[in-house]
Amino acid sequence: MEEVILLEEEINELLEKKDYHRLKEILSDMNEADIAAIIAEIPEDKLPLVYRILPKELASDVFVNMDSDAQEILIKAFSDKELREVLDELYVDDAVDIIEEMPATVVKRILQHTDPEVRNSINEILKYPEDSAGSIMTIEYVDLKKYMTVDDAFTRIRRTGVDKETIYVCYVTDENRKLLGLVTVKDLLLSDKSKKMFEIMETNVIYVTTLEDKEIVADKFQRYDLMAIPVVDQEHRLVGIVTFDDAMDVLQEENTEDIEKMAAITPTDKPYLKMGVFETWKKRFPWLLLLMVSATFTGKIIQNFENALQAQIVLTSFIPMLMDTGGNCGGQASVTIIRGLSLGDIDYKDVFKVVFKEFRVAFLCGVTLALASFIKLMLIDKVGLMVALTVCATMIITIICAKFVGSTLPILAKRVGFDPAVMASPFITTIVDAISLIVYFEVAGIILHV
Amino acid sequence: MEEVILLEEEINELLEKKDYHRLKEILSDMNEADIAAIIAEIPEDKLPLVYRILPKELASDVFVNMDSDAQEILIKAFSDKELREVLDELYVDDAVDIIEEMPATVVKRILQHTDPEVRNSINEILKYPEDSAGSIMTIEYVDLKKYMTVDDAFTRIRRTGVDKETIYVCYVTDENRKLLGLVTVKDLLLSDKSKKMFEIMETNVIYVTTLEDKEIVADKFQRYDLMAIPVVDQEHRLVGIVTFDDAMDVLQEENTEDIEKMAAITPTDKPYLKMGVFETWKKRFPWLLLLMVSATFTGKIIQNFENALQAQIVLTSFIPMLMDTGGNCGGQASVTIIRGLSLGDIDYKDVFKVVFKEFRVAFLCGVTLALASFIKLMLIDKVGLMVALTVCATMIITIICAKFVGSTLPILAKRVGFDPAVMASPFITTIVDAISLIVYFEVAGIILHV
Repeated sequence: MEEVILLEEEINELLEKKDYHRLKEILSDMNEADIAAIIAEIPEDKLPLVYRILPKELASDVFVNMDSDAQEILIKAFSDKELREVLDELYVDDAVDIIEEMPATVVKRILQHTDPEVRNSINEILKYPEDSAGSIMTIEYVDLKKYMTVDDAFTRIRRTGVDKETIYVCYVTDENRKLLGLVTVKDLLLSDKSKKMFEIMETNVIYVTTLEDKEIVADKFQRYDLMAIPVVDQEHRLVGIVTFDDAMDVLQEENTEDIEKMAAITPTDKPYLKMGVFETWKKRFPWLLLLMVSATFTGKIIQNFENALQAQIVLTSFIPMLMDTGGNCGGQASVTIIRGLSLGDIDYKDVFKVVFKEFRVAFLCGVTLALASFIKLMLIDKVGLMVALTVCATMIITIICAKFVGSTLPILAKRVGFDPAVMASPFITTIVDAISLIVYFEVAGIILHV
Repeated sequence: MEEVILLEEEINELLEKKDYHRLKEILSDMNEADIAAIIAEIPEDKLPLVYRILPKELASDVFVNMDSDAQEILIKAFSDKELREVLDELYVDDAVDIIEEMPATVVKRILQHTDPEVRNSINEILKYPEDSAGSIMTIEYVDLKKYMTVDDAFTRIRRTGVDKETIYVCYVTDENRKLLGLVTVKDLLLSDKSKKMFEIMETNVIYVTTLEDKEIVADKFQRYDLMAIPVVDQEHRLVGIVTFDDAMDVLQEENTEDIEKMAAITPTDKPYLKMGVFETWKKRFPWLLLLMVSATFTGKIIQNFENALQAQIVLTSFIPMLMDTGGNCGGQASVTIIRGLSLGDIDYKDVFKVVFKEFRVAFLCGVTLALASFIKLMLIDKVGLMVALTVCATMIITIICAKFVGSTLPILAKRVGFDPAVMASPFITTIVDAISLIVYFEVAGIILHV
């Protein structure tokens, strides 16, 4: 990253000095992803200039790697010829990604300049629901027929492979495009040249259907270590493939979504700096409101015990510590369980194992934290023994409740079909706050008779 | 997943009935990852039996996919011959993964039965620090020489490829094993047979060094859409490669680590159900203690304002709501920023952009939430106007502070070399709690003169 920042400065300098020759030299030596990252930082008006300096082979690769704002600027600056050149080099799935981010007028211009066949494919993919396997697939795969020999297969790969997103996994289909099996280039290279596809193909193919969620695509890549996965329609006809690099992107998006949900934010796939203020507010406000309203119940509990607090005002000062510790304990448990569920380490059937384990962990945490508190309360705060006992007993009970709530709610949410990620710290905290206060005042009633 | 559970029942039934013939039929049709998942659920004593039913080609693939507990049971049950058969089929990186999880006696037995050359490689990889690129690489790659022709290259791939983890990316090295370039099988297939490697190889190779963190490996896969990455030593000699499937695993581990840190848990790479109670406690307790001690400062603030609370005891009941809302606002901001930093969407140089944006979002959130509160306070809680104003003004100020703290601390943490993920909700909440109380009592002093 450091290098990239240094290069950025050098490139800006060369731009100032209009030393385009040296600029071209430097850029030609770089990787397309790095160039795209640097170009994103160049002033808008100079963007088309820098882009045009790039050698043609590199230019369209850089284009794919740029963010949509930069792409839009370029498309608007392109002549029709330039636009067509870039579009010709794009894979269909990349074209779809670009189109999805562009305003309508730009989309229209793009579609006008793609050739009709590709345009149809783009429109097909655009029809699939957002987040479906169909929406992220590409149609550029190598398809082979059952009776082709290894030699035939190589001929076909050599003839058509240059435009395919991967050639390493080829799919064998019948005359109705139904998926029969797959053959890897490794199989082809290690097989006798006269062998037929049906002799060497793997028929036990892992696939997804067009309408399945893209999360399932990412899960299957993870589970089966795939390089590509075929996407079939309801009639088991092969319509496209998803390659591992796109699956990796899906994986990252899903992780981001989970993390956002855990922080009580409506997920979005826009990078932070690209989101407007109002849009950001819309993703955050409803959750804050819901949690705020829930938290007022906690206030009600305090109101009910106002007399107890009036009698022992010192109790008030331990409320934040008890609530925070409970919330943190519950949050730890819930986040661990949510992640375990999402990685497939934990299942509904494990609920008793989980609860039993969390109970023991909670007991350990509770006793050790209460002990630490007790020492501090007696030696530093110098409160009365009974007050210290009230606080410590509350702490142990609260922590056990918190770990119980934190570990069971995500599993139950998943069981009834909700996203467990929502049952993370913010919600658990709100519930545990109420629990900790009720416990606190009940314990205070018993020990301190307030 | 449903299917797998159904199959599990069927398999258990067949085991009961000792119908091994049918069992073999079913298992032979399945994917190795699915078999491994099912085998994990089979009673320990029957595990070796089921494993031995598997066709030989499948057996070692299944073995790699099993969890370490099942692997250990099997290794202990294996005859020397069986063990050798499995080990011969393993890739070195998989062997290393297995060894890292086994007790010393089992490791000894494994190393005794691997052939000397592989044993040396295993020992080499085991020497690399945990989490380094070297520790996750495999040494099974195809290396080519500069003056080989395309035909030579294919001959070499055909001869040695069967044991390589990937054949699709081949590396060109000089006589000192220094990395010169890479050639993909696609390049080979689409090039003239008499071309030499130095004519077609890509020399601008993305690589990592053995001691770099594996996180960097995953980042480069993401950034450059790689299928494999070469790992070189300090002298730029090629020592191994990491393939995309392993990079995907690293990506998931890194995500899990980040999520755990955000929930104030020391990260671990053990699945939840495999961790002992005491171990789990050790990962959670230090953070809880730290946060608890920090939270006592919040208690001190309340103590300082005890007189104010005595005078207006109703103020106490809004403390949880104000603290929670502040914590949630801060948590939203911090988690968003932490994720943005980790995805590379946000940089230190964006700190002012971020703060300005969060300020505006905070203002919007603050005003809307305060408005909702005001209505509720006046109509439902029927508190005095001045009390309502105190609560609402506190809310707006607290939210602005919370978003500021939540957005800046992760960026600053990263700047000074700490892991920003630690600056998530638990820490932010603790800080914001204190802020919200100070603001609350100051505002109360001004408006209510308490």
